[in-house]
Amino acid sequence: MKFEILKQDKATGARAGRIITDHGEIETPIFIPVGTAGTVKAVHQKELENDVKARIILGNTYHLFLRPGIDIIYKSGGLHKFMNWNKPIITDSGGYQIFSLAGNRKLKEEGAYFNSHIDGSKHFFSPESTVDIQRKLGADIMMALDECTPYPCDYNDARDSMELTGRWLGKGIKRYKETVPVYGYDQAFFPIVQGSVYRDLRIRSAEAVASLDLEGNAIGGLSVGEPVDKMYEMTEIVTGILPVSKPRYLMGVGTPANILESAAMGIDMFDCVIPTRNGRNGMLFTAEGIINIKNLKWKSDFSVLDENGTSFVDKQYSKAYLRHLIVSQEILGAQIATLHNLCFYLWLMKEIRNKIYEGSFSRWKSITIKKISSRL
Amino acid sequence: MKFEILKQDKATGARAGRIITDHGEIETPIFIPVGTAGTVKAVHQKELENDVKARIILGNTYHLFLRPGIDIIYKSGGLHKFMNWNKPIITDSGGYQIFSLAGNRKLKEEGAYFNSHIDGSKHFFSPESTVDIQRKLGADIMMALDECTPYPCDYNDARDSMELTGRWLGKGIKRYKETVPVYGYDQAFFPIVQGSVYRDLRIRSAEAVASLDLEGNAIGGLSVGEPVDKMYEMTEIVTGILPVSKPRYLMGVGTPANILESAAMGIDMFDCVIPTRNGRNGMLFTAEGIINIKNLKWKSDFSVLDENGTSFVDKQYSKAYLRHLIVSQEILGAQIATLHNLCFYLWLMKEIRNKIYEGSFSRWKSITIKKISSRL
Repeated sequence: MKFEILKQDKATGARAGRIITDHGEIETPIFIPVGTAGTVKAVHQKELENDVKARIILGNTYHLFLRPGIDIIYKSGGLHKFMNWNKPIITDSGGYQIFSLAGNRKLKEEGAYFNSHIDGSKHFFSPESTVDIQRKLGADIMMALDECTPYPCDYNDARDSMELTGRWLGKGIKRYKETVPVYGYDQAFFPIVQGSVYRDLRIRSAEAVASLDLEGNAIGGLSVGEPVDKMYEMTEIVTGILPVSKPRYLMGVGTPANILESAAMGIDMFDCVIPTRNGRNGMLFTAEGIINIKNLKWKSDFSVLDENGTSFVDKQYSKAYLRHLIVSQEILGAQIATLHNLCFYLWLMKEIRNKIYEGSFSRWKSITIKKISSRL
Repeated sequence: MKFEILKQDKATGARAGRIITDHGEIETPIFIPVGTAGTVKAVHQKELENDVKARIILGNTYHLFLRPGIDIIYKSGGLHKFMNWNKPIITDSGGYQIFSLAGNRKLKEEGAYFNSHIDGSKHFFSPESTVDIQRKLGADIMMALDECTPYPCDYNDARDSMELTGRWLGKGIKRYKETVPVYGYDQAFFPIVQGSVYRDLRIRSAEAVASLDLEGNAIGGLSVGEPVDKMYEMTEIVTGILPVSKPRYLMGVGTPANILESAAMGIDMFDCVIPTRNGRNGMLFTAEGIINIKNLKWKSDFSVLDENGTSFVDKQYSKAYLRHLIVSQEILGAQIATLHNLCFYLWLMKEIRNKIYEGSFSRWKSITIKKISSRL
């Protein structure tokens, strides 16, 4: 994996560049649609490529491990072949899902014991086994196993957790360096900074991570319920420590406004379920503001979904029609809203890059955040 | 509406032709995908047109009346505009749903009182009001209000019901003739033959319907649980009575085998939820037979979905991948299976037409029915 910074914004920490993987280039800053179980919900792979213009997607190790199981994906030749997606894939380590979804979890020095949220079956993830699993999934970028603390989190718990994540990281790197890619192409490995909302813990974790000189670095444990100012504060502290020359990935973030603010701090990669999950529930993001399509005001609004939208759904369907579909819980409603939101997110990332290249990012950001955060 | 028979099969009652509406031509025999609430579930309109190559779809008056409501659709300029579908639309009268879905229904001489299955609200459909509603929906083909008897049905009940449907038909035609199309283009009106599985009732109903000389005629009340031989027997009796020169529509039928057998009796139009509903549940129809994709045997089958399939999904996704999606209840699974099945159904109709034109329909039918009905 290679990372090049092509333009550093003068007024902010934002930068534009590209990540080069064996499955293709990714222009940064980039948004990564979440493809939990080997599918970005309600979107065909060809739509993801041609309409959304996604250049990298995320797969969840926890979900794929439980269903269809790693053996099936391995036999098929890896996740790219299994789901027929030939561009880069990043997989998480499963840590977040163990703490948010799984039942009866027990954390030990050697790893995490947990029960499947689907059938209660017992499983164990270690810092080493999650590397092996992600090797078999064939991710272009693999993530270290971490513990993601909830918010609020007691200082001592956050410190212990951050230290455990640090020890797990050492074991994960060891396994990563001892093993080779399963399918021939390069597989990078990113460590994750933790430390909840405590400055000193974040600094210690970021310094440890920075010293490892891996191909990219991630910030985890944010956007878990803390005030947005805390999220920005932690992000700023950490980006100040992580190496400039490596891509920075802010995990699980966020709203369009969150992304603009964090890109300004030098974040290069984002993933989040907001455009997909909230879309299925009727929340649409547009350049003019946020639409709750379930609202009565759209009932007889036969104007096109988004006159500035880049997707075919924006011109082919009306607000009143989408409202009807979402209210009636029709599958096509989920398809339309998801495609619209992902197209908007990827369009927004392109705008961010363009503004950085043009040197107008900072001014544009202030105006844009107000508009895209308003309620229509 | 115009109907032309272009080729009459010599060995069977099958015929190939075309229906010409103000929204375009429909080659017959045709299958009509069911678009219950203004959407063929899990399929984009452009996929319906370009991939499925649907030339007419069905909307359910009952569902559209309850959600979004006829006023919304009327304000939008009719169902075609509301859902952005510019080819022909047929709507049913709501009769079937009142008897299969609605609560607390009461049948009176003047019409049907019922409660919404969504919120329990009280409504009334009369033979006249369902014409008015379908006028506002803007269907190219509207259906008369009928009572659809369940199976089994006592002879006296079936007779009384058939007679009521007959009196309703008279009122419906009167309203149809007194009113004009709402949006300028022509709107045809089809009567429905009832009579359960009783030969004499079916004959009386068919003779009454045939005498009306409307632009097309439908057969209702079949495929409701009766033995398939009874269905074929009734269809054959009725097609022998309905005018040759008018399209014959067998409502709610059926499996690919049902369609082949009924086309051989001179049926020109079919609609059914089987390809869509069963598809969402993992049943795939192919030229080689029926696949239950949930079956364990497909778990590690990485071959393409259907090597003979006509849709992009058939080549882009594997059986193992679709199995995973359906088992995991992923929306994309419903999208893929639905698109595959509808493409297969429309391909099958084209094959039927081709074989009729070539004069080889009868022989081809015998071989094909065995293949497409087998379990893979």
